[in-house]
Amino acid sequence: METLSKRPPQNARARQNDRLLRVLNGQPVDRPPVWLMRQAGRYLPEYREVRAQAGSFMNLCRNPELASEVAMQPLRRFPLDAAIVFSDILTIPDALGLGLEFTAGEGPRFCRPLHSVEAIGRLKPVDVRSELGYVFAAVEATRQALGDRLPLIGFAGSPWTLAAYMIEGHGSRDFNRPRTLLYSEPAAAGVLLELLSQTIADYLQAQVEAGADVVMLFDTWGGLLPPAHYLQYSLYWMGQIIAELKGRDTTRETPVIIFSKGCGRHLDAQAASGAAAIGLDWTADLAAAARIAAGRVALQGNLDPAVMTLADTERATAEVDRLLTTLPAGTRHIFNLGHGITPEARIETVSIVTHHLAELK
Amino acid sequence: METLSKRPPQNARARQNDRLLRVLNGQPVDRPPVWLMRQAGRYLPEYREVRAQAGSFMNLCRNPELASEVAMQPLRRFPLDAAIVFSDILTIPDALGLGLEFTAGEGPRFCRPLHSVEAIGRLKPVDVRSELGYVFAAVEATRQALGDRLPLIGFAGSPWTLAAYMIEGHGSRDFNRPRTLLYSEPAAAGVLLELLSQTIADYLQAQVEAGADVVMLFDTWGGLLPPAHYLQYSLYWMGQIIAELKGRDTTRETPVIIFSKGCGRHLDAQAASGAAAIGLDWTADLAAAARIAAGRVALQGNLDPAVMTLADTERATAEVDRLLTTLPAGTRHIFNLGHGITPEARIETVSIVTHHLAELK
Repeated sequence: METLSKRPPQNARARQNDRLLRVLNGQPVDRPPVWLMRQAGRYLPEYREVRAQAGSFMNLCRNPELASEVAMQPLRRFPLDAAIVFSDILTIPDALGLGLEFTAGEGPRFCRPLHSVEAIGRLKPVDVRSELGYVFAAVEATRQALGDRLPLIGFAGSPWTLAAYMIEGHGSRDFNRPRTLLYSEPAAAGVLLELLSQTIADYLQAQVEAGADVVMLFDTWGGLLPPAHYLQYSLYWMGQIIAELKGRDTTRETPVIIFSKGCGRHLDAQAASGAAAIGLDWTADLAAAARIAAGRVALQGNLDPAVMTLADTERATAEVDRLLTTLPAGTRHIFNLGHGITPEARIETVSIVTHHLAELK
Repeated sequence: METLSKRPPQNARARQNDRLLRVLNGQPVDRPPVWLMRQAGRYLPEYREVRAQAGSFMNLCRNPELASEVAMQPLRRFPLDAAIVFSDILTIPDALGLGLEFTAGEGPRFCRPLHSVEAIGRLKPVDVRSELGYVFAAVEATRQALGDRLPLIGFAGSPWTLAAYMIEGHGSRDFNRPRTLLYSEPAAAGVLLELLSQTIADYLQAQVEAGADVVMLFDTWGGLLPPAHYLQYSLYWMGQIIAELKGRDTTRETPVIIFSKGCGRHLDAQAASGAAAIGLDWTADLAAAARIAAGRVALQGNLDPAVMTLADTERATAEVDRLLTTLPAGTRHIFNLGHGITPEARIETVSIVTHHLAELK
């Protein structure tokens, strides 16, 4: 056992900038690490150019060279402390045979949604390594471009969020169909969520092996569930994935960040999930969350993305300072937005805010 | 002062079924009163028939006879303890000159949205009594149809929620434009919210004078705001409306219910707003809320609307019982859904659930 515990952690690869990894591991840092959800996105003209070159969003995801290029773009402009793999959370349902399409102005849609219990029963596990090789190639290409300068974040959708899309068939304001299924067919829901959890664990493991240092679960629709359903159908399965990764040699030491949008009220339960950090959206009270977390986990967030659209950059940095000064001393904090950066974000504002954060002492 | 306090409350008109009024006034009841948000709605074939006859949704709102008819429809089917006026929250922006249109499949849209600070500055107060007479006529017609059998609930959108629609110009997932304005133009936002608050107070007063016993503020988009903004730009103005109504002779004793979707975490502040009851959406923990409310206010909600779509009615009533058994003894509770009933709700399930609730002891 002595030798085991002395063995350097599998994934604690040395990175020149290791602020993110240090906060996730509970180590001191000179200032909070900063990255922005959807930092490679439509607010950047160079992104829009590569996106146009790719022809479609999924073509961009499927081309490792272009996916790596757009992942690197924000790092050239802003002093960010992490890169994130460029991909989409719906790659897994697509690999499971649902047929993902992005229709203009409507967002994602599946050709073969799970509109019956029978359809759920017919789902077969897939080998993500063969079906989703393009994602791992994108991770490798991004790691190569990064060298050892920065940590790279891999990600997946949460089991519940993927199930919600797969059952509804497309985006929705309230996802009534999957929410009803949790009441009417809890066994079928369990079968689907378990299959997704296994698939997601494999998918994240492969991303780590390809060069990701940290992985994140995006639970975009956890906030649509009543408390008991959130715990049972969303958080439970994220916990299962985390436990599964901790049990695997190549992912044992990989920190996991979970982000359930609209679920700040569940922080206490989230802190017991095994996650190293909990993402908070912009409607949560970060200072109150820090008191609840009490150092058990790091917190990631939660500046209102609207702040990045302000032309008045002094007001924008004042909002950043307001957020930071409310935090109890010693809070393990990863600075981020409370949701993905919007296409309307102003590059100058993003630049001034991120430089302001980089100069904090 | 003696004579004043002995004077019967202006609006405590006697209703044969006064469960709702008793709970709002902190008096004991034999069982929780029950009503359903959007109880007059598309899940009822008789509603769809009248809606088709009216030609458009706004025609239905503008025809007092038809609006009263659809408000009465659910009462003929289900043992409900309150009626609610049939109208829309966007009548006020329409009266303020924004030009409301409902486009098929897209929802509400304004012809003249408030896309600039100048447009906000140009808004003029309106006399709701002359501009929105059709609403008060609908209240009167519904009161006439009800007689003194049941309490009637009048309503309005909250200042923030109306402002959000007016600035964005239409429905939206995140209302980025109005959310940004709160940072960039707080003074203009204040001007708009004050004008709306005054208008809403007049509007609710006129509904009370026309026969409403209770009024409710629907704050559909309060949950999109960061905590400080919710308190400053949404809850504060709802509190101002409540204070204004309490100061007016004809509305002094009228209980006000406020419902900010997605704001269960703000219950403590909401309980200090002067509202008689706080609505909770289905993602809130009702039992935990009851402990926080501690009898200061009544709580309204919060069954998941998805339960009404279940074909298995035993499972549906079991969910109702599960919700009720978690409540601390003596909770001041108005049973409702956590959001409007959906078009997919099954009439048989609604019937069995409401009869189940009516038979509770």
